[in-house]
Amino acid sequence: MAATGTSYPMNGGNGLHSYTNNSKFQRGPADAIKQMTNTAIVDNNVSFASNNTTTIRVGDMGCSVGPNTFLSLQNILQSLRCKMANDSIEYQVFLNDHTSNDFNTLFAQSVPHQDSYYVAGVPGSFHGRLFPAASLHVVHSSYALQWLSRVPNSVLDCNSPAWNKGEICYCSGATGGGKEESIVGAYKEQFGMDLGCFLNARASEVVGGGLMLVVIPGRSNETSHSKVTSNVTYSLLGSCLMDMAHKGLISEGKVDSLNIPIYFASPEEVEAAVEANGSFGIVTMECIKQGRGPGTAESKARAISAHIRAGMEELLKLHFGDDGDGDRQTVFPMDELFRSYEHKLLTCGFFQGDNSGEAFTLFAALKRKHQ
Amino acid sequence: MAATGTSYPMNGGNGLHSYTNNSKFQRGPADAIKQMTNTAIVDNNVSFASNNTTTIRVGDMGCSVGPNTFLSLQNILQSLRCKMANDSIEYQVFLNDHTSNDFNTLFAQSVPHQDSYYVAGVPGSFHGRLFPAASLHVVHSSYALQWLSRVPNSVLDCNSPAWNKGEICYCSGATGGGKEESIVGAYKEQFGMDLGCFLNARASEVVGGGLMLVVIPGRSNETSHSKVTSNVTYSLLGSCLMDMAHKGLISEGKVDSLNIPIYFASPEEVEAAVEANGSFGIVTMECIKQGRGPGTAESKARAISAHIRAGMEELLKLHFGDDGDGDRQTVFPMDELFRSYEHKLLTCGFFQGDNSGEAFTLFAALKRKHQ
Repeated sequence: MAATGTSYPMNGGNGLHSYTNNSKFQRGPADAIKQMTNTAIVDNNVSFASNNTTTIRVGDMGCSVGPNTFLSLQNILQSLRCKMANDSIEYQVFLNDHTSNDFNTLFAQSVPHQDSYYVAGVPGSFHGRLFPAASLHVVHSSYALQWLSRVPNSVLDCNSPAWNKGEICYCSGATGGGKEESIVGAYKEQFGMDLGCFLNARASEVVGGGLMLVVIPGRSNETSHSKVTSNVTYSLLGSCLMDMAHKGLISEGKVDSLNIPIYFASPEEVEAAVEANGSFGIVTMECIKQGRGPGTAESKARAISAHIRAGMEELLKLHFGDDGDGDRQTVFPMDELFRSYEHKLLTCGFFQGDNSGEAFTLFAALKRKHQ
Repeated sequence: MAATGTSYPMNGGNGLHSYTNNSKFQRGPADAIKQMTNTAIVDNNVSFASNNTTTIRVGDMGCSVGPNTFLSLQNILQSLRCKMANDSIEYQVFLNDHTSNDFNTLFAQSVPHQDSYYVAGVPGSFHGRLFPAASLHVVHSSYALQWLSRVPNSVLDCNSPAWNKGEICYCSGATGGGKEESIVGAYKEQFGMDLGCFLNARASEVVGGGLMLVVIPGRSNETSHSKVTSNVTYSLLGSCLMDMAHKGLISEGKVDSLNIPIYFASPEEVEAAVEANGSFGIVTMECIKQGRGPGTAESKARAISAHIRAGMEELLKLHFGDDGDGDRQTVFPMDELFRSYEHKLLTCGFFQGDNSGEAFTLFAALKRKHQ
């Protein structure tokens, strides 16, 4: 059974605030992932095609609109060509994301690649079935599975111990008194259900011996949720929203009811979901710690603000588009929010000591068991 | 070798002038086509799947954004389910059109159908390869193949006998002195090349025994080009543009250089292309004469104007967007054009006698020969 998915597409097009122009962060651990992808595909223990296969089909789940999708696919296809060593095999690539994703921008970017593989776009939630049975040889999903299909109900319920008042992410590190544990628990449960739906759907769609390559921002088994860099940055964004609420620019209730549906899982949690599903074996599971990267605090603050804006603008617009104050429709002050956010990143000590937390990327190569 | 395709997408979205809301004309001979489609698919002489086929793949070439695509596909899938009589077979539908087609609107319309078949969008020109070899069981193309990949060069060359000065379609019936023959010849040659490219590409992509169902507006073998209803209507649109040029609203040279890249073929011409290709056998070839339909002259004039606008607006915008008069950018008076067009349809005698010409739809069912 597929979870009912809510769609928060990345900013489309090619403009200043587009995801296309603000998704460099995802390229951070690209070299390590590229190497692990190559190894997983070329590894002789993986055999995802029978002798008479003439087409290898690759699905990219949650592809969004950015250029990263095509960099990953090029790498996967290079490895596949190396593995197959058969010039007569053709490759078909399926680019999946929610129906509201900007497929036209995506397709426009795909055109230069069409001489080496055939492209198709597949609209819909990857928490449910999207492809015929046993029709995919390789599935790839990069920086997508951290998105939950929905905000857990209890987090939105002011009578629940998990009510996430005054915060927009599931773990700010600032809360206490058992509240945090309830909220984290609700998010963890939702992540487990969503990953379960994803694995169930893919188990039907991937051929026996086929590969699934999953890249998600997460945390190590030892890292607490409040130390995850993204939670620190989201929490700061939440505090900027509360500042705006205190100034009367937006309603405090609207900030209370905003919850970013993202969860940062540990390798143990991903392993548990794979084992519960039972259709895939774990070939590789790595937790890569991301470096701090070069640049001044100013340039980093600007880049973080732009990156978060590309991913969050649509969600913020949807949530704050109408402030609920009778008939008065207000335009949400997006520019002001991200100016104050950039300023807060610089002044709150985010770039001093280890105040910016730790960032990890989980890489998992899963092999579909033969039935 | 694929022809280099120029894209003139139908009006996207769901608005007043959208193709979605102005494509009812294509439904004209729908019942006859539905019946012929059913017969072609269910006919026992056609066998497009081997015993171990678990997925039937259907490609719709030049699907545009309108609802007609899904009506046709539902009919095809009903016939396929009847033919296959195997509940474990799954169906995957590929919706193809140019990259600039409004795939997001198309995908939004496709959602209610996803429980019965899997949907994918394929961007690119159907004059070239779009799919892996032998990967499609049924190909459908409706009201798309009349579009040429380009305007023939000679028609744009003021030194050629085929220069189409003062007209926007290849045959208005008003020209003479051998000029018309040259223009028709140039268009006919381009249509032959384009259909050849289409057949070559599909010959590679369709499985042996697979079916191709082609619906195109055309003419009977006996009907002269100048008597084709669409040529009459395009010619009237051209005369409205010339009226605007005479008023100084647009440049006459721009009207001279505008040529709608559409050709209306006869069954003989389609047969010749299929035979020249050699990979398909003709199962059925029908030329259906369209009735006049109900409605007053006023309601028909309004409907024709709206229909032509939905298909031509993008082409007109591209052509007249800049009138070439130095730095002066003008906004093309689209509303004014289609008001005067509707008025001319009513006053020029279009609805009297047989001044509106004759409209035919060609239906061809082609079977991919086994290699």
